[in-house]
Amino acid sequence: MPIRHLKNLFDPHSVAVVGASPREGTLGALVMHNLLGGGFEGPILPVTPRHESVAGVLSYPDIDSLPLTPDLALVCTPAPTIPAIIRDLGNRGTRAAIVLANGLHKPDGDGRGTLRDAMLTEAGANGLRVLGPHSLGVMVPRIGLNASGAHVSAAPGGVAFVSQSAAISSSVLDWAKTRGIGFSHFIALGDAADIGFGDVLDYLGSDPHTRAVLLFIEGIDQRRTFMSAGRGASRNKPVIVFKAGRVPESLRAAGFHGRPMWGADDVYGAAFRRAGMLRVFRFAELFAAVETLSRAKPLRGDRLAVVANGIGAAMMVTDGIVLGGARLAEIGADTAASLEGSAADGWTRTNPVILAPDAPAAAYADTVKALLAAKDAVDAVMVLYAPTALSSPDDSARAVIEAAHKARRPVMTCWMGDHAVGPARRAFAEADIPTYDTPTLAVDAFLHMVRFRHN
Amino acid sequence: MPIRHLKNLFDPHSVAVVGASPREGTLGALVMHNLLGGGFEGPILPVTPRHESVAGVLSYPDIDSLPLTPDLALVCTPAPTIPAIIRDLGNRGTRAAIVLANGLHKPDGDGRGTLRDAMLTEAGANGLRVLGPHSLGVMVPRIGLNASGAHVSAAPGGVAFVSQSAAISSSVLDWAKTRGIGFSHFIALGDAADIGFGDVLDYLGSDPHTRAVLLFIEGIDQRRTFMSAGRGASRNKPVIVFKAGRVPESLRAAGFHGRPMWGADDVYGAAFRRAGMLRVFRFAELFAAVETLSRAKPLRGDRLAVVANGIGAAMMVTDGIVLGGARLAEIGADTAASLEGSAADGWTRTNPVILAPDAPAAAYADTVKALLAAKDAVDAVMVLYAPTALSSPDDSARAVIEAAHKARRPVMTCWMGDHAVGPARRAFAEADIPTYDTPTLAVDAFLHMVRFRHN
Repeated sequence: MPIRHLKNLFDPHSVAVVGASPREGTLGALVMHNLLGGGFEGPILPVTPRHESVAGVLSYPDIDSLPLTPDLALVCTPAPTIPAIIRDLGNRGTRAAIVLANGLHKPDGDGRGTLRDAMLTEAGANGLRVLGPHSLGVMVPRIGLNASGAHVSAAPGGVAFVSQSAAISSSVLDWAKTRGIGFSHFIALGDAADIGFGDVLDYLGSDPHTRAVLLFIEGIDQRRTFMSAGRGASRNKPVIVFKAGRVPESLRAAGFHGRPMWGADDVYGAAFRRAGMLRVFRFAELFAAVETLSRAKPLRGDRLAVVANGIGAAMMVTDGIVLGGARLAEIGADTAASLEGSAADGWTRTNPVILAPDAPAAAYADTVKALLAAKDAVDAVMVLYAPTALSSPDDSARAVIEAAHKARRPVMTCWMGDHAVGPARRAFAEADIPTYDTPTLAVDAFLHMVRFRHN
Repeated sequence: MPIRHLKNLFDPHSVAVVGASPREGTLGALVMHNLLGGGFEGPILPVTPRHESVAGVLSYPDIDSLPLTPDLALVCTPAPTIPAIIRDLGNRGTRAAIVLANGLHKPDGDGRGTLRDAMLTEAGANGLRVLGPHSLGVMVPRIGLNASGAHVSAAPGGVAFVSQSAAISSSVLDWAKTRGIGFSHFIALGDAADIGFGDVLDYLGSDPHTRAVLLFIEGIDQRRTFMSAGRGASRNKPVIVFKAGRVPESLRAAGFHGRPMWGADDVYGAAFRRAGMLRVFRFAELFAAVETLSRAKPLRGDRLAVVANGIGAAMMVTDGIVLGGARLAEIGADTAASLEGSAADGWTRTNPVILAPDAPAAAYADTVKALLAAKDAVDAVMVLYAPTALSSPDDSARAVIEAAHKARRPVMTCWMGDHAVGPARRAFAEADIPTYDTPTLAVDAFLHMVRFRHN
C-alpha cells in the first residue's frame, strides 16, 4: 500500500479541478468555491475547454496543457468521461484523483465492462490512486484543503472522520459546525472502488495530527487490509466504528453501489473487537464520541464523581455508570465535609453530590474544585444542570468552566433541556469542555473513555 | 381514591398563594408571576401578612381572612411552617394543596416526628390532598393554569407528563419549549408524600383532554394503587415510562427524600409490562416519544416505507426497523415504476427509496405522494434528508409538508445535522409533522408506535 500516494491525496502541493465551471449550481463551480475559500496555499488549476478562467483563476483547456503536474486532481465531470480523464491524469504523472460522479456501474462505451472497471484499469496502468467514485471529497483543515462538494467546511481539530456515505458525511459536518467541533481529516470514500478504509486507516494511524479516528462503514471488500490497518491504528489511538448494514434488507438497499462486501454483521463485530476498535450502535453516540475525543482530557482511572442540581439526573447517570461497568468515585469524609456547604439540604454525603435546584454559581465552582482536589479518589467529574427559574444556566456554566480550566482530569458537562441552555452549551464548546445534550449521552461518553483506556 | 379532590388540583376555580411576595427572586413572587401570566380565569388570592397587595392583586393576611374558600392552595413558605398552614387550609375547607418547600424530612418542633408526618396528619384530618413536598407544581395549559415555580410555561397539547424530579420536569419543559410541544398536564409530584403516580394516573387515564401519559419515575411506594391505575390508563391510551434507580447506588443517592420504595428494578420492569406500559431506557427516547404522541397520525399497520437522499441513512433505518421487529413495506411494481423518475440513478426499485443527494424538492413531494397512494402496501412513511450543497433543506421540507398535509397515515421526518436544518425542523413542528434529530431516534419512534398499536 504505497502511503506516499495517499500523501498526494491528503497533503498535496497542487490541485487540478477537472470540469471546473463558473456556472452557479454546478459541481464544478461548487468545488472551485470550496477550494478557493479554504485557504489552501498551493496552486489550484481549473481544467475546462469552455472558459478562459473560473472564479478569477486562469484555466487550462485540458490536462496536457497544465503548466505543472498536479499532485491531486478533483474530477467533477459526469460518469462517462471518467475513464479517459483518469488515463490522461495518469499519463501526465498525477498520482491521486478524487472522483465525485455517481453512475459508474453503467457499461463503458468501449466494451471494457463497466465505467468503473475501465476507470480502475486506467488508474492501475499508471499507479494512480482513486478516491471514489461518488465521493463527497476530502478536507484537511490544517492545510486549508477543502477538496469537496460539501455544503459547509470543517474546522481544524484532532479527530479524523471517514465515511462511505456522502449523506452521513455532510450530516456529521453540519452537526459539527454548530458545535464548533474540528477535524484533522474529513474523508468521504464514496463507493471505495480503489482507496478503502484499510488504506486510509493505515495513513491516519501514523498521522501525528490525528488524535482519534471515526469510521462510518456500510461495507468493506478488502478485509485483510482493513484488519491489519485497523490493528495498527488502534494501537496508536482510539478508533470508533459505526457500521450500517446489519440485516440483509440493508445490504439489498445498498446493492446498487455494485460493491462486493464480506461477511455478515457478526463477522464485522468480531473483527472490530479483534482489531481493538470500539463499535457504537446509535448515531448520537457517534456524535458524543466526537465530542469526547475532541475535547476531553485524558482519563487515568474509571472513578467518576457526579454533581447534579436534582436527584433524577444523578440517578440516571448512576444507573448508566454502574450498569456500564464503570465506577462511582468513593468520596472521603474530608471531601464530603468540604462539600456540605454547597450541597442540597439533606444530601447523603455520598457521590453523586446533589446541589439545590437553585444553587448559586459559586456552589458549582466550589464543588467541582473540591472534587478535582480529591486526586486519590476521583478520576473525572461530570456536572449536570437542569434549568430552574431562580438560577442562571450561564453563570453556573461559567463557574464550571473556571473551576475546570486548569484541571488535568476530564470534566464533562450536561446542561439539560434546550431553550434555556444554548448559550451555556456554546460557552462550554468555546472553552473546549465536552458537553452532551442528555445524561444518557454523557454516560455513553464516559463509558467510551473507560474503554479506550483499557484498550 | 377520591378523584374529585384531584379535580380541585387540576381544574380549580380559585387558587390561593400562601407566602406570595412582591420581592423578586423569591418563590412567592415567581409563583404569582407564573399564575398571573398563564391566563387562568378564576380568582388568584395572595396570602401574606407583610404586603397589602402582590403584583397588583389585593392580598389577605391569613387563610382565615380569605373572602372565599380556595379550591387549591400553592404553599410557597419554608418547611417549618407547612404543618400549620395545611391545618389552616383544611379547617377553611380547601381540599388540595401544592407544597413547594424541600426539607420536610426534618423533625417537627411539636414532637410529632418529621415535618412531613405532621403535614400528613393535618391533611388527613380534613381530607385535604397534598402534592409534594418539593413539588415544582402543576400546569394545565388548556385552562391557563400555571401553578408552578418553573422557569418556562407549557403550551397546550395532548400529552400529560408526570415526574417526581423537579430538575427532570424543568428539563423536559425547556426542551418542549424549543420544539413547540404542548401538554395537557404537566405535573411534578416531588417527594409524593400523599398524591402519587397511582392517583394521577387514575385521573389522567379517564381525562378526555389527555391523549397519552409519560411518567418519569424514581420510586413508588403505593404499588397496588399504581398497578391498578396503570392498567386502567393503559387500556385507554399509551403510557410510557422512564424509570431511574436501576442500581442500589442510585437508590442510596435518592435516600434522602425519605421515601419508602418497593422492589428491585426488575420487579418494576415486570410490573410495567403487566400493566401494558411501554418502558424506555434513554432520555432522548422519552423526547422522541413525546414528539410522536403529540404529532403522529394513528398507525394502522407496521409496514414502513423509507425515503432518503443517501444510502447510509437508509441502511441505518432499515437495520433498526428489522432488528426492532417491524417491517419494511414491500413496494409493488406499479409503485416502483411511478417512483423511478424521482429516485437516484441505480435505485434497486425496492424499499427504501433512494433519492439523489441533490434531488429537487419535487422529487420529495412526488415520492411521498406515491408512497401514501400505495394504501394496500404502506402504513407509514419516513423521510430522511442529509444537507447537501446543491439542494435546499427548507424547500424539501416544504415539499414533504405539502405532500403529507392531508394524509391519514403517519409521515415521520428526520432532517439530519444541525447547522443547516434548524428552519426545516421548525417548519415540521409548525405543520405538526413529527421530526427527529437522528435516524436512530426516528426508528425508536416508529417502534414505539408499533408497540402501542399492539397493546
